[in-house]
Amino acid sequence: MKNYFSSDFKLGVLGGGQLGRMLLAETQKFDIYTAILDSSKDAPCAQICNEFHIGDLLNFDDVYNFGKKVDLLTIEIENVNIDALDKLEDEGLTIYPKPATLRIIQSKARQKNFYVDNTIPTADFLHYAYLEELKHSYQNNIVDFPFVWKSARFGYDGTGVKIVRTFEDLQSLPEGECITEKLIPFKNELAVIVARNASGETKTYPVVEMEFHPEANQVEYVICPARIDQKVAQKAQEIALKVADAFDFVGLLAVEMFQTQEDKILVNEVAPRTHNSGHYSIEASYTSQFEQHLRSILNLPLGKTESKVAGIMVNLVGEEGFTGDVVYENIEEIMKIDGVTPHIYGKKQTKPFRKMGHVTIVHENISTAREIAQKVKETVKVISK
Amino acid sequence: MKNYFSSDFKLGVLGGGQLGRMLLAETQKFDIYTAILDSSKDAPCAQICNEFHIGDLLNFDDVYNFGKKVDLLTIEIENVNIDALDKLEDEGLTIYPKPATLRIIQSKARQKNFYVDNTIPTADFLHYAYLEELKHSYQNNIVDFPFVWKSARFGYDGTGVKIVRTFEDLQSLPEGECITEKLIPFKNELAVIVARNASGETKTYPVVEMEFHPEANQVEYVICPARIDQKVAQKAQEIALKVADAFDFVGLLAVEMFQTQEDKILVNEVAPRTHNSGHYSIEASYTSQFEQHLRSILNLPLGKTESKVAGIMVNLVGEEGFTGDVVYENIEEIMKIDGVTPHIYGKKQTKPFRKMGHVTIVHENISTAREIAQKVKETVKVISK
Repeated sequence: MKNYFSSDFKLGVLGGGQLGRMLLAETQKFDIYTAILDSSKDAPCAQICNEFHIGDLLNFDDVYNFGKKVDLLTIEIENVNIDALDKLEDEGLTIYPKPATLRIIQSKARQKNFYVDNTIPTADFLHYAYLEELKHSYQNNIVDFPFVWKSARFGYDGTGVKIVRTFEDLQSLPEGECITEKLIPFKNELAVIVARNASGETKTYPVVEMEFHPEANQVEYVICPARIDQKVAQKAQEIALKVADAFDFVGLLAVEMFQTQEDKILVNEVAPRTHNSGHYSIEASYTSQFEQHLRSILNLPLGKTESKVAGIMVNLVGEEGFTGDVVYENIEEIMKIDGVTPHIYGKKQTKPFRKMGHVTIVHENISTAREIAQKVKETVKVISK
Repeated sequence: MKNYFSSDFKLGVLGGGQLGRMLLAETQKFDIYTAILDSSKDAPCAQICNEFHIGDLLNFDDVYNFGKKVDLLTIEIENVNIDALDKLEDEGLTIYPKPATLRIIQSKARQKNFYVDNTIPTADFLHYAYLEELKHSYQNNIVDFPFVWKSARFGYDGTGVKIVRTFEDLQSLPEGECITEKLIPFKNELAVIVARNASGETKTYPVVEMEFHPEANQVEYVICPARIDQKVAQKAQEIALKVADAFDFVGLLAVEMFQTQEDKILVNEVAPRTHNSGHYSIEASYTSQFEQHLRSILNLPLGKTESKVAGIMVNLVGEEGFTGDVVYENIEEIMKIDGVTPHIYGKKQTKPFRKMGHVTIVHENISTAREIAQKVKETVKVISK
């Protein structure tokens, strides 16, 4: 077993945003020397990692040269140059999640085909190489309103996904490869995080329930455990495991799913990394998703995924109408409430809907936690000076 | 209310050891810009704080000049130059805990007099300006073996405290101001951490029980909650609160106490900071002691001090016979056990009894947690390559 703790071992992370920042809390806990690559000198990780390198995550040379400096490479975000990862892997570097897996996940079209090939339930879809193809499809009555449009590449938290209800909506879509899905009326959006290490040890976190902001398509509340039927929860976990196994995944895989009106589970998409739907785990779980990510990529034994208490997460996103130096209005008010913990991501500038932090609410009773979460949401505001 | 989060506010911390390192996890969570002063460029905090300054904590100029750079000053360790703090405070800097309090606590003789003056129960003691005075006392039958010798200044975790049983022990004591106490046969060593903010809001953590290594005089297990009678626990909390109130304390105060054979509580000593006896709180409590320290010195509302689950802490100290580049033998073995979290402090070199890290064991059942703690203690070893 490689000696990672307080040693010369160097972990490399592509991306220095908030997910990297929360990962650093864990690499610091284990004293694992961590180098980070990000394009911005003001990235949330910039001042608090052992080594910070500036470079473009989508640039071959930047990623390749960074990879040559580290002993093991992981990602904070999946939108990275995979060609560079392939070359690094060919040259012997261990990279988790594996580049081949990232290549599939990077493209929503490839992701959907992967689900079909592996008999993983997912919403029916159509695939278009260009926007023009989609417009033809509409003219030929192959797709009809409303439908869900997804950019094939680099969709992330509300960008790259649109519900298309009218001809105007269709006209305003950006160019490029895309897929369309039928708009499915669902009961719940659920997510399950699966951890899998190189030895094949696998653990699933409890099913969480997500409530989205109606306009911004960003998660407002993540509720753990999901308040759903135990059988549905079990099915969701089984499907999440099936996805992780199909990928022969190593690392953390967040599987987002729909629970349909008929209690069917459909996989929506996956993220090959720590995920917003797992932030509650820092306070609520025996093992936070960030520690678990480290355990999985270092092939350490996986930690217990059960919760100590119920957990709810509220995203702190920039209020509409405010851009500039950030102020967290009323943060002291919410800190008066038992079991409320704010996390501030270290971004100095706010803008509408920008993810600036999150707040975790933990309580023995999930209904009480949900009430407190509502109060937190109504009280704290991310504005500018 | 001052805006601390993601702002220009700069927190200064005197000392960059493991306590500072665990504090940084919290300043990072709240995005509070943190500058640290420590004498060693290899200090556990050196690479992961926003600003790191090298200087001697006992040197007037080093402390004063550092203090002039920050908006609020706190300590990680109490052995700092108080004259510099007095001058900084005179010049308007907010310093918590207050320099006047630190001056009392720095000296075990002043601490003991303070307890007597404030009718806080403590073991009877005698005070000597020089070792020679103590030797005279012995010759004149004023003290008799066995007794406890404590250096008046800068005792820390096993240094500066000795049980004197023989004339040889007496001869081998170091020079300097000291106190002696009767050796009290006690049932338990207990500790209570009190948090108090500038507004006077006060919260106490549950009473913990400490088991010491017989030779090194270092804590081996900290058990929360202490397995003692509820009435004794309540008395211990009341006395701890009384100490904090007597100091008009701001910050975190760890009050170490003896439970005598007759269930009397005697205050042994206090630490004006986060403390080894509170490390369990990271995993077990609703609010970790490090977050609570921040809340108290920033005059934010204090967090809930109750536990989610039972917690036990095992110190990871260097094994006897090993000096050099550290290796944490069998750390993967203990990580296989549910609810076990190692914390590695980032020291590259081990030596006998050096504090290198700790392991927290959390479980719903405290007896199970204690069994696991024993197993952890027997399994993991801090050795050198």
